[in-house]
Amino acid sequence: MSRLLLLGAGRSASSLLQYLLRHALTERWQLTVADVSPAHLAPVLAAHGSYARAVAFDSQDEARLDELVATHDIVISMLPAALHLPVAHACLRHRRHLATASYVSPAIRALHDEAAQAGILLLMECGLDPGLDHMSAMQVIDDIRGQGGRLTSFKSYCGGLLAPASEGDNPWRYKFTWNPRNVVLAGQGPAAQFLDNGRLRVIPYQHLFARAETLTVPGAGPLEAYANRDSLSYRAPYGLDGIPTILRGTLRRPGYCAAWQALVQLGLTDDSFRLGNAATLSWPALLEAFLPAPAAPHFDLPLRLSQYLHLAPDSPEMGRLHWLGLFSEARTVGLADATPAQLLEKLLTEKWALSPADHDQIIMQHQFEFELHGQRHRRTASLVVTGADATHTAMAQTVGLPLGMAVRRLAQGLVAQRGVGIPVTAELYEPILAELAADYGIAFVEQQG
Amino acid sequence: MSRLLLLGAGRSASSLLQYLLRHALTERWQLTVADVSPAHLAPVLAAHGSYARAVAFDSQDEARLDELVATHDIVISMLPAALHLPVAHACLRHRRHLATASYVSPAIRALHDEAAQAGILLLMECGLDPGLDHMSAMQVIDDIRGQGGRLTSFKSYCGGLLAPASEGDNPWRYKFTWNPRNVVLAGQGPAAQFLDNGRLRVIPYQHLFARAETLTVPGAGPLEAYANRDSLSYRAPYGLDGIPTILRGTLRRPGYCAAWQALVQLGLTDDSFRLGNAATLSWPALLEAFLPAPAAPHFDLPLRLSQYLHLAPDSPEMGRLHWLGLFSEARTVGLADATPAQLLEKLLTEKWALSPADHDQIIMQHQFEFELHGQRHRRTASLVVTGADATHTAMAQTVGLPLGMAVRRLAQGLVAQRGVGIPVTAELYEPILAELAADYGIAFVEQQG
Repeated sequence: MSRLLLLGAGRSASSLLQYLLRHALTERWQLTVADVSPAHLAPVLAAHGSYARAVAFDSQDEARLDELVATHDIVISMLPAALHLPVAHACLRHRRHLATASYVSPAIRALHDEAAQAGILLLMECGLDPGLDHMSAMQVIDDIRGQGGRLTSFKSYCGGLLAPASEGDNPWRYKFTWNPRNVVLAGQGPAAQFLDNGRLRVIPYQHLFARAETLTVPGAGPLEAYANRDSLSYRAPYGLDGIPTILRGTLRRPGYCAAWQALVQLGLTDDSFRLGNAATLSWPALLEAFLPAPAAPHFDLPLRLSQYLHLAPDSPEMGRLHWLGLFSEARTVGLADATPAQLLEKLLTEKWALSPADHDQIIMQHQFEFELHGQRHRRTASLVVTGADATHTAMAQTVGLPLGMAVRRLAQGLVAQRGVGIPVTAELYEPILAELAADYGIAFVEQQG
Repeated sequence: MSRLLLLGAGRSASSLLQYLLRHALTERWQLTVADVSPAHLAPVLAAHGSYARAVAFDSQDEARLDELVATHDIVISMLPAALHLPVAHACLRHRRHLATASYVSPAIRALHDEAAQAGILLLMECGLDPGLDHMSAMQVIDDIRGQGGRLTSFKSYCGGLLAPASEGDNPWRYKFTWNPRNVVLAGQGPAAQFLDNGRLRVIPYQHLFARAETLTVPGAGPLEAYANRDSLSYRAPYGLDGIPTILRGTLRRPGYCAAWQALVQLGLTDDSFRLGNAATLSWPALLEAFLPAPAAPHFDLPLRLSQYLHLAPDSPEMGRLHWLGLFSEARTVGLADATPAQLLEKLLTEKWALSPADHDQIIMQHQFEFELHGQRHRRTASLVVTGADATHTAMAQTVGLPLGMAVRRLAQGLVAQRGVGIPVTAELYEPILAELAADYGIAFVEQQG
């Protein structure tokens, strides 16, 4: 019997919790779900009373955390990433395995030797991105290497999007399926860096969305991608040091990036200063502040804005700005003394809100180039997952199921690695990718040539 | 007799020290110059042994600071701005006046009531900019108000430049006469904000140097100016709350801003990430990293770069980039794993180095618009100061002389204000502006209409 502790059971944990409950009886698990407000779990757990219970848990209560960890064998944390460190310390004290879907932070990485000596695994980055990206990429990379091939190019793209049937008349073909603030600030901070044929490439933020590239994913059609900031950091964990080309990017539907670039160029994604504005400021008045003074006040704002941005007045980009209501005098910004990014986030949270009937869609594609027996080859692996409903979204499934499956293998004693780890080894990616495909239809489509 | 303590006597204090020594005998001052390496002061003070001495002083030594402040009547700090707070605290403990050329920090501002109760003046912002800008602007503003006028527009520009005769073949018409890092990072951080006919205007960094405006200063010819970030903060101290137009800008010679914009657009002023580069990387190879991949490797870099920036290959902007040596394979960046801004600063520090024979030049202009007796009027006040030599630069004179003159008035008991203050009152600006004009020829030229 294994005693599992799930810390944090918000919306994003829905598919993970369903997976754990589905297997609890046959795997002889005792499951404790610890959440800040456990009341909402009662209907979910009602049919599983003999082996699952919910308890109240305040993540600030370290004594309670210690007590919970001590009385379980494996800890799964769906808490915000910033809260993982005290959980990892408790796991070290009591020699319990930990599994999360969050990035390895420097503080967590520093625990590697200690965890290895304690004989436990602190398994990180085991959700979607990071997580499923590692597994699906490493399966192909190991296969190519096993045949004696040498990788010359690795490009990897992922996006949390909207299913086409849910797009309606929204010309951005996008709604928020994840943290809105992260979407508004995407690409800010350090510039995107990647390698292209052995040469470092840098794309500063002011050009990032203007230099999006296009690609086609089977089952999803054409997409565009802007470069992530951190492509180079994936060389070491994938064993790709010395690879001439490596790039990671974020996917959007065609047309999104050029229109977002217009918002960037205007300055509306800037989060570095407050405007001192009234909440009743209209959106056209806000836009005026970012434009050079007109020859005559209020002279055709959309026309002047399009000229400033070197866009045709009837361009698709201007169409997307019109659709947001930026030029509507009746639309007020609604927040006083806010940053431009905060005002844009507030507007987009209204315009890009998911309705209960909407379905999200996760799209991922890896592109590999390699040399084998003196010949150049190309392979792609592509994934399209559409959400089942507003609870079991594609995001919740692809984050939660890999994590649940890794925990299952861990509980079965089938995972040998110890210390701080990520799912780049066959002992994890093989069974998880097989189970995702067989039981959930979450399968990568491979193409060669 | 007044005992004066000058903390910090580096190059920028040359004219201040000369002023203090010039007046010490007639004003019956005993002057102590406290510097981290006082040896260089011996020849300067040799002829003034009866009333001036140099002592060693480590700004980290708070006990020594306390002792020095206790045994003097007025403290003048030319230490870096970050070190002023402990000096101000020592002045409060011993009830000594303090005078500096640095901005009022929030921590200093918080000492106002305490200083007022102690009967001392903590006089800040009494150099050039801030300092002489306050004095010269307030003299005109008070004059307009005294006549019953109402200000509708205030624009103020200042630049630390190079005298035209020292420009040589440098097409930027600029060399570093002040902190190079501040010049490279100019305009970064919060976006520039100002008021134009009652409307807030915001200029994000990516457009700042593209939206420079032009103006003409008597005795200096045409100039261009980019907006400072903090124009709005000058309303309260100048009593201009409610003014429809207020702008502060930084001056450059014509052509500088458009060429600097090219460096901004390329991403070379970015200080937010390290490139992981070798010190032996060539400048053309660095530029390649910031450009989209060429159709053919190494295909005419200057041409591709000009196309990327929408500049003509033979444009003045491209000419300025060529002059910097950016396209010379022989020029290496010289710093390993540096930010783009650090590499640009290193290059510019070579190309824009002042030679001993060069003269710097300070240019300032205020533009006022006001209504008087139902009519609209316009006045300007302009200043051009050319450095005497490499020691008594225009910068050292215009920073140091106003500060020395304020201290002289303070020692004479002719300054009534107490607490934390800046030189916006007639008791300071009238005698200082008069003395600058009469004794140093540093005089504003006024124009009306």
